[in-house]
Amino acid sequence: MPQSDPSTRLPLTELARFSREVISASGADRATADAASRAMMHGTRHGVDSHGIRLLPHYIEALEGGRVNRRPSIKMLNSFGAARTLDADHAHGALATYTAMHNAIELASRFGLGAVAIRNTSHFGPAGAYSIEAARQGFIGLVFANSDSFVRLHDGAERFHGTNPISVAVPTTEANPWLLDMATSAVPFNRVLLYRSLGHPLPDAVASDEDGNDTTNADLVDMLAPLGAAFGFKGAGLAGVAEIFSAVMTGMRLSFEIAPMGGPDFATPREMGAFVLAIKPDAFVDRETFDRGVRRYLEELRTSRPRQNGQVMAPGDREWKVAEERERNGVALDPATATAFEQLSKRYGVAFPA
Amino acid sequence: MPQSDPSTRLPLTELARFSREVISASGADRATADAASRAMMHGTRHGVDSHGIRLLPHYIEALEGGRVNRRPSIKMLNSFGAARTLDADHAHGALATYTAMHNAIELASRFGLGAVAIRNTSHFGPAGAYSIEAARQGFIGLVFANSDSFVRLHDGAERFHGTNPISVAVPTTEANPWLLDMATSAVPFNRVLLYRSLGHPLPDAVASDEDGNDTTNADLVDMLAPLGAAFGFKGAGLAGVAEIFSAVMTGMRLSFEIAPMGGPDFATPREMGAFVLAIKPDAFVDRETFDRGVRRYLEELRTSRPRQNGQVMAPGDREWKVAEERERNGVALDPATATAFEQLSKRYGVAFPA
Repeated sequence: MPQSDPSTRLPLTELARFSREVISASGADRATADAASRAMMHGTRHGVDSHGIRLLPHYIEALEGGRVNRRPSIKMLNSFGAARTLDADHAHGALATYTAMHNAIELASRFGLGAVAIRNTSHFGPAGAYSIEAARQGFIGLVFANSDSFVRLHDGAERFHGTNPISVAVPTTEANPWLLDMATSAVPFNRVLLYRSLGHPLPDAVASDEDGNDTTNADLVDMLAPLGAAFGFKGAGLAGVAEIFSAVMTGMRLSFEIAPMGGPDFATPREMGAFVLAIKPDAFVDRETFDRGVRRYLEELRTSRPRQNGQVMAPGDREWKVAEERERNGVALDPATATAFEQLSKRYGVAFPA
Repeated sequence: MPQSDPSTRLPLTELARFSREVISASGADRATADAASRAMMHGTRHGVDSHGIRLLPHYIEALEGGRVNRRPSIKMLNSFGAARTLDADHAHGALATYTAMHNAIELASRFGLGAVAIRNTSHFGPAGAYSIEAARQGFIGLVFANSDSFVRLHDGAERFHGTNPISVAVPTTEANPWLLDMATSAVPFNRVLLYRSLGHPLPDAVASDEDGNDTTNADLVDMLAPLGAAFGFKGAGLAGVAEIFSAVMTGMRLSFEIAPMGGPDFATPREMGAFVLAIKPDAFVDRETFDRGVRRYLEELRTSRPRQNGQVMAPGDREWKVAEERERNGVALDPATATAFEQLSKRYGVAFPA
């Protein structure tokens, strides 16, 4: 089929359309199709392909299997001042987390701050999709989540935390916000899988064998190391912050209790938690001072002296560049995703992205 | 003088008493003497000696010089819902930050969350002293600060951020909270000074020469590397979070604009900012569920399999052990601090710690 030629670059709008139509065709409601597609397209647009549109076949499996509720009814369990708890009714994580961030922004408009704990949610893809939502509306957004275990503790020899992301987005007067979206492990597990398939040695101190000893041999890797190498207690501590906010503050599963993302059980809801926080800068300082401060900070950062052959960038700068290029030229699917998309196209009678 | 025998261990209560009396004798008010002493003793008690009682001579210089206001009048500039801004009137950073955290706790009691931006503050010592204040009262506490530049950017070749600490404390049903208190650089600069004086090679990827290239030769070190080694964009991003919260949200100085801590100017206020946040867990989830979650998390963490010769610990565990030992046996002063204390003792007529 000509569509699956791996050199073919597909327009982002077409990928988004395909994703929405396939999710709807699987029986999910419109809100789920929109939210999940939008979050995946955040990943694909910004070059975070691990959390991009390649997740579509996985999400379809979860929606069809019953792990993720196709027609959830998200309810407010509790609201106290600037704090709120939602029960997401096992919704797709994107729908749950966008909903939560919109709640947090509304609270922050009234109270200067707003935080929402999410119960009974599921995998949400790229954390930055939700923090940026706050920044686009003039708020600082923070997102915390845990995930199934892949990362050892500092000095540990078993998988304990997930790659537990933390994302912070800050509004600017530029076209794009300041955007940090980081796993609290040194690298994601699919980086290991990539190096394994390429037969390349890994960077130092990013992954360990089954006894917790660091290895650069991707074939021996059994778990990831926390961010920080010899100072991995910092990365493990940050993973703990994400864990406590997302799982303990919601009463949901700790990383090592979460069923593996990859199945085989796609029928049982994973009972995950997440936590979002929105902050209104002008509740603390006048907007002009805030905006000027962000601008001065970014200018000084971007003109800070680089080391030889280095390039100094603000968090997000690399992503906006990729986004610009992909908006213009589209993006090619990896072969496995292209094949899976063809199958989805056939199965649901949805036109392949053109 | 027998007191300065470096093997002599001095009781913590005596060190605290000495600190309070010397600060008061320098002309500072009681609140300043209490807060500064308490924060320094947090450092000394928990083995964070870089931020412990050895700072006393430095603080006296700043108080006497006028950099730090001995009799500040801390004012509320702005209060909007759960958000508040204080002008600390160039108070000692400990007084400003304890005051801010008490404000944040009060707001969190009413709104579930409370955040306080602090303007015109100064060096506050150990960030954990203030987050723990929230945890001791049943709240999650977060503290962000920037400081004078020592740390390059990822791929950078000049000092840009300070060691910009982030601290998070979480209440537990144990004697002590969960406590993360981390610089966003890999190591503190005085670790480099220590290795320099010992002639030992530094760990990999923690510090750089004047061109931003990593070096293990402590004599060549001109700046610190951000946490994360090859993934230093994460450490630099976290430093940015601390920078934006503490300096931009307050309209105060960015790290590279802050006068060096070590002088020579001890007369001019440094116009620093800081930011604290308190969160009431039971605004989101019932207390029993929260407490049980923290307990389960800590139990599983502490019994997670260690690697050979390794020891798995929760953030803070090492510190509580040191505290127990030091409460019992006291602590020895390093020679330079002992000498400085003798001078302070003589100058102000305050009895040396006995």
